[in-house]
Amino acid sequence: MAIKIRKLEKKDKAALTEILQNTPEFNAGEVIIAEEVIDGSLDNTNKSGYYSLAAENEEEVFIGFISYGPVPMTQYAWDIYWLSVKREFQGHGTGAALLKAAEEKIAQAGGRMAFIETSGKAQYDKTRRFYVNNDYKEICNIPDFYAPGDAKIIYQKILG
Amino acid sequence: MAIKIRKLEKKDKAALTEILQNTPEFNAGEVIIAEEVIDGSLDNTNKSGYYSLAAENEEEVFIGFISYGPVPMTQYAWDIYWLSVKREFQGHGTGAALLKAAEEKIAQAGGRMAFIETSGKAQYDKTRRFYVNNDYKEICNIPDFYAPGDAKIIYQKILG
Repeated sequence: MAIKIRKLEKKDKAALTEILQNTPEFNAGEVIIAEEVIDGSLDNTNKSGYYSLAAENEEEVFIGFISYGPVPMTQYAWDIYWLSVKREFQGHGTGAALLKAAEEKIAQAGGRMAFIETSGKAQYDKTRRFYVNNDYKEICNIPDFYAPGDAKIIYQKILG
Repeated sequence: MAIKIRKLEKKDKAALTEILQNTPEFNAGEVIIAEEVIDGSLDNTNKSGYYSLAAENEEEVFIGFISYGPVPMTQYAWDIYWLSVKREFQGHGTGAALLKAAEEKIAQAGGRMAFIETSGKAQYDKTRRFYVNNDYKEICNIPDFYAPGDAKIIYQKILG
């Protein structure tokens, strides 16, 4: 599958909202926060400090996105906030292509490390394996952070 | 010294800004972000999710403050954002009194754990000792997070 990565645009919003709502790993509160991050990144003034990239397939259909931004009060730490690929297009390298494109943008902007936080719950096993396979190292594990039995795992990748 | 802890009020703003500007541990960017958090907590609608408490001495002089709030997307995790005591009033338990009052408010609101992040630099030795003395445990240490040689240390306290 030929995947093209480009800047996220306003026209992607409906398809993107559909992906968020159909991603079982996101709950309702998370969808609201993800939409705030995405709206921030669509604002051309970029006051929000959020950035987003879109993936589309060879038919120019929107199939996934990634959102990221610099960590305030740091010289070169960046956070990856959200990464999601439409379910029927998963397993073909779209997530890795989005992640790699974001890392390149971050490095170009002077970033030297990227962080990703995710849940320790069993339903996120695939998500966590994906980050480890993409050279993210687990650096912190906070039990019961999100809820009882739901730990926060922090991953880091040193860029470049 | 008799210390009274109360809600932060708009009338405290000038004294508070002076404390921020005279605290060598805060740089200019941090002062701006601290002011955003404080303004959010002074907004009575509390849309921001930030809360602040003030300390005053027996002469009703404002001598310190603490800002805190729930961590979005968690059931009971809270962050302590800022804690500062006017330099000439340090060393008399005002910081500990502010911290204890915030922890009580957090627990009353259903919070079960509090997090504090601070720098690993030598100039924050006293700050880190203060948190450890107040039963915060170091749970994560991220080298070079803020800048080269400037690690982020995350502390956690389980409440109640």
